[in-house]
Amino acid sequence: MGITIKDVAKQAGVAASTVSRVISNNPRISEATKKRVRKAMKDLGYHPNIHARSLANKSTQAIGVVLPSSDKALQNPFFPEVLRGISGIAHEQDYSIYISTGITEEEIYEGVKRMVHGNRVDGVVLLYSRVNDRLHDYLIENNFPFVVIGKPYHQIDAITHIDNDNITAAKTITNYLIDLGHERIGFIGGDRDLVVTLDRMQGYHLALEEANLPVKEEYHIHEEFLKSGGQEAVHKLMSLTEPPTGVVIVDDLMAFGVITMLDEFGLKVPDDISIVSFNNIYLSQLTMPPLTTVDIHIYELGVQATKCLIEKVKNKLEPAKRIIVPYTIIERNSAVDKK
Amino acid sequence: MGITIKDVAKQAGVAASTVSRVISNNPRISEATKKRVRKAMKDLGYHPNIHARSLANKSTQAIGVVLPSSDKALQNPFFPEVLRGISGIAHEQDYSIYISTGITEEEIYEGVKRMVHGNRVDGVVLLYSRVNDRLHDYLIENNFPFVVIGKPYHQIDAITHIDNDNITAAKTITNYLIDLGHERIGFIGGDRDLVVTLDRMQGYHLALEEANLPVKEEYHIHEEFLKSGGQEAVHKLMSLTEPPTGVVIVDDLMAFGVITMLDEFGLKVPDDISIVSFNNIYLSQLTMPPLTTVDIHIYELGVQATKCLIEKVKNKLEPAKRIIVPYTIIERNSAVDKK
Repeated sequence: MGITIKDVAKQAGVAASTVSRVISNNPRISEATKKRVRKAMKDLGYHPNIHARSLANKSTQAIGVVLPSSDKALQNPFFPEVLRGISGIAHEQDYSIYISTGITEEEIYEGVKRMVHGNRVDGVVLLYSRVNDRLHDYLIENNFPFVVIGKPYHQIDAITHIDNDNITAAKTITNYLIDLGHERIGFIGGDRDLVVTLDRMQGYHLALEEANLPVKEEYHIHEEFLKSGGQEAVHKLMSLTEPPTGVVIVDDLMAFGVITMLDEFGLKVPDDISIVSFNNIYLSQLTMPPLTTVDIHIYELGVQATKCLIEKVKNKLEPAKRIIVPYTIIERNSAVDKK
Repeated sequence: MGITIKDVAKQAGVAASTVSRVISNNPRISEATKKRVRKAMKDLGYHPNIHARSLANKSTQAIGVVLPSSDKALQNPFFPEVLRGISGIAHEQDYSIYISTGITEEEIYEGVKRMVHGNRVDGVVLLYSRVNDRLHDYLIENNFPFVVIGKPYHQIDAITHIDNDNITAAKTITNYLIDLGHERIGFIGGDRDLVVTLDRMQGYHLALEEANLPVKEEYHIHEEFLKSGGQEAVHKLMSLTEPPTGVVIVDDLMAFGVITMLDEFGLKVPDDISIVSFNNIYLSQLTMPPLTTVDIHIYELGVQATKCLIEKVKNKLEPAKRIIVPYTIIERNSAVDKK
């Protein structure tokens, strides 16, 4: 510390104002001078104060990452994996990452407002999409660069979003159970307020309807995207008089909860009941049984979102995009032929 | 946007300079005026520009979180869990979180320098401790608030750190295998450059020595703290003529790699070989077999580190502390009596 712009100016033999112009990459300064000043900065270990610079050129070189609810979200392996993708691109492009720490919707909203008005970040990635999310409206009204991982509920053409085709993915994985001979197929979803839950449920319905199988209300269970949620869900489902023989679960972590609870009931997966789920988090291959699941390529969702966001930051006129990351069915051992 | 300090001044019936003084909490402004100005700010939805304010009062209300190597670290469930603890306290105290995205040691070092000189954060939490880590020296030299999760290799009394007693923990878990009748006990460690590896290895040695069991060089394997590392390690270990009957593994995620690889060799845990490990990440209860492991209370490490850091930020004279978070042995099914 202690090195100032004046020290750099002296070392480079130029005026302090010239150093400022080099820092802001002013085109009126010759390349030779820029080179000399930059060498002096490097030799002296001078780092321009990023806050001071931000006020001038309005760039923070940071992007905000907004979680649905920090405490819960951090318990799901989806988060570190999507962050790994975000971090990879951010690192390449010399951006830092700011993380929201809000728990309630209100706190998250206030946190984003602070990021925006406080000039803390150049843009934000929302890691989820809710029905009627006022964050979307807020960011659009303020013309602040943002991208959504998931599908916006409104204004879909105005918002850059990176999603999987969750309807088709859910239809395909439900058909997988149907092809194995299952006719009583349940669905365990997360928060109904999340668009991803709605899309996956719709795909499940489409598959049942096309196969002329009844869509039974009592086969639907909605809980939070968490292990404890899965455990409650299975209590309800398996106490039906005609319980399902196969279940589509919207999240691998919930599926683990279901498997554990079934085990406590003395029911084994896949011998007594088949299970398929979504996300292909890395631990889905480690459990017993390894899960048959839809790989949604979480890392790639993070990569694409960050690339789009940085484009948007660099060019406010960049058009809104819809990017669909392909899914892959990963066949393991949690679902078998209906006996 | 668009709301300025002048609008607030008008609404509150004071001068713009008075609003500035309220924002910087100047003691010369009466409580009544502060109250009136704050109400006007709230009513108008005015957020002082945090960058501008930071230059004045030098607070960023952000803390930096430094990972050992972002891409790899994000693949280990230790990270989101410690971040959950950090985020909990940061949220309470109205701090945001900045995450390093460097991959190599050099990039991480440069990233921290930018955080410090760029006035991006008020302090940093280092999530690891390396032998001869120049980051520690750098932060001390610059008198910049920081805390370490782990044990500093040098200057231990000068650096606030939050650690487990890894030597005793490793000794205890090794004794657990010895008490089950195991005499040939291996050790699979991570990067030897990490102090946590050295401490856990030392505890393992102490247990063997006290039990008069030989410490065999060929029973030690060091690889990265990652699943793929665990897989390589087991190849080497099990091809010995007298392979171990029990293994102490320094990381649950590595243990999963070992179990998977043993399975490919036709060896079952715990019937053919017993395994104990460290961390008690949430998935260690979900795998087959569930892991007997040392719970190091990752969340609590994050909580304590963040509390200490914020104390240090608020008071540069706060003394250095050493906080030892207790460990708990979690007995599950990955280790049994030697046959």
